[in-house]
Amino acid sequence: MTRVLLHDVSPRDGLQNEKSFVPTAQKIALIDALSRTGLAKIEATSFVSPKAIPALADAADVMRGITRVTGVVYTVLVPNARGAERALDAATDEFNVVMSASETHNLSNLRMTREQSVAALSDVFALARGAGVPVNASLSVAFGCPMEGDVRADEVLVWAERLIERAEGRLAGVTLCDTTGMAYPTQVAALTDAFLRRFPRTELTLHFHDSRGMALANVMAGLAAGATRFDASLGGLGGCPYAPGASGNACLEDMAQMLELCGHDTGVNLDALIECARTLPALLGHDVPSQSVKAGRRLQRHPPPADFDSIRQRALAR
Amino acid sequence: MTRVLLHDVSPRDGLQNEKSFVPTAQKIALIDALSRTGLAKIEATSFVSPKAIPALADAADVMRGITRVTGVVYTVLVPNARGAERALDAATDEFNVVMSASETHNLSNLRMTREQSVAALSDVFALARGAGVPVNASLSVAFGCPMEGDVRADEVLVWAERLIERAEGRLAGVTLCDTTGMAYPTQVAALTDAFLRRFPRTELTLHFHDSRGMALANVMAGLAAGATRFDASLGGLGGCPYAPGASGNACLEDMAQMLELCGHDTGVNLDALIECARTLPALLGHDVPSQSVKAGRRLQRHPPPADFDSIRQRALAR
Repeated sequence: MTRVLLHDVSPRDGLQNEKSFVPTAQKIALIDALSRTGLAKIEATSFVSPKAIPALADAADVMRGITRVTGVVYTVLVPNARGAERALDAATDEFNVVMSASETHNLSNLRMTREQSVAALSDVFALARGAGVPVNASLSVAFGCPMEGDVRADEVLVWAERLIERAEGRLAGVTLCDTTGMAYPTQVAALTDAFLRRFPRTELTLHFHDSRGMALANVMAGLAAGATRFDASLGGLGGCPYAPGASGNACLEDMAQMLELCGHDTGVNLDALIECARTLPALLGHDVPSQSVKAGRRLQRHPPPADFDSIRQRALAR
Repeated sequence: MTRVLLHDVSPRDGLQNEKSFVPTAQKIALIDALSRTGLAKIEATSFVSPKAIPALADAADVMRGITRVTGVVYTVLVPNARGAERALDAATDEFNVVMSASETHNLSNLRMTREQSVAALSDVFALARGAGVPVNASLSVAFGCPMEGDVRADEVLVWAERLIERAEGRLAGVTLCDTTGMAYPTQVAALTDAFLRRFPRTELTLHFHDSRGMALANVMAGLAAGATRFDASLGGLGGCPYAPGASGNACLEDMAQMLELCGHDTGVNLDALIECARTLPALLGHDVPSQSVKAGRRLQRHPPPADFDSIRQRALAR
């Protein structure tokens, strides 16, 4: 039995992909409900420019409105020092900074070279040091880039190292992100193993998308290789711009159900998670990829046919 | 690298769950297309009573209409001696017989006790012996029964043994079926290991449903424990009456993509499989659970933004 820490990213990675704006009060209610399920961390919002991501324009109000539960880390995505200042004002527990493992994705997504991203993030690291706030760095496309293709494991590790060095002890963790669902089990095992050997003092989180159906297989592979922290998204919310209609982030409650059945201690209340996920279709106006929402818990019993007794009696009379 | 044999069950397990009748010619075209993808086995249809499953009432015409490809085993589901006779007339390569690992499911589904099922299948075994046709036995709900709950591994093995003994050397293989998506990775590993130790000369096939999202994780667990044959369904067709809206059988092309990426030799042409799966929505009138249909192959490249060159130039000019 392994202690596995689950992080929910649905309020950020999920809601930023929604077409319609979820009212602030409902975002707060969702985060508050998630806070009571035993999660280790919730990525509550993103302090990006409201123009860039209007869906999360209410970041400060969300952070001020939630009821914090002891033991839950409330992290937020910050793109730069300006975002980090706003996040500090809103009393975030952690900054989550992001850059890409491939040059083409970093330029396309952040309009900077990777070198420039590392330099720009130095300001966030300095702010974090001054404020005593830990930083987690997310490396996008760490398992493959939709534009470049394969990204070599040693290249991923080089950029992780650059960030760890530049943060001068301020980087608590690194998240390896499978941004467009290109990870596969043997690759996950190899990269997890390589990361943990090279950076034994840095908390590793794995972040999978289910765009090619392998998210839960990748979780099992990462776990076997020593990873114990996983991002996931309630209901499987989230998306991939390159695969319209495909599944989004790894589904939190499906992951939690699998880990619980395999005897791992996630600390989460699976029934409460499924209840939370069941509120999503009404909140968002569409179905969600979650299987557990439809099929329920594994041992949820179903009645035999209504005429079961007579079926049995006729069978036994033969 | 392991040689992994993939069996497609979509023409039987998939189409029998469809609301509308797929015309015989289109069934034949689907099977013929699948025959050219490198699959080891195709479950082409079912010789059950046309009244019980009208969707497969054209079983004999389908079997007579397909173009057989050398190296592909064309198996059919037969419920009893009458079905086996019809299947023999239609020149099937193999009989697939079925009973449940739990008493309640067997009674509910087959209206017999498990003892009565073993006795009834003796007639099929006798016919098979006379005709020189191999038999595979599928044990439903081997990883859990939606009505009884957990099914003990030793109970599953007892019924497998009863069938193997009763078949007197005629049983080539046993398929352990996760009929309603209750299997989970550690359970799959344990049952696979126990089966292979106890019945080293019986071909084992694992048959998963994705109702709780764990099908591909279960494949990896089964493979690690020594299983090398897996059922799957093109497009993820198939269903589970207990989980409306949930995914169906394990998706063939998603499974094939994962296994290929992990370096295993499935012998299938993944592009051809995805092409086949892309014909399903038009054939059936609805979307299919397949992720590979939407997201494509892992290394399918996407172009960077149209203004990528100017983004890069501006970045480099800073």
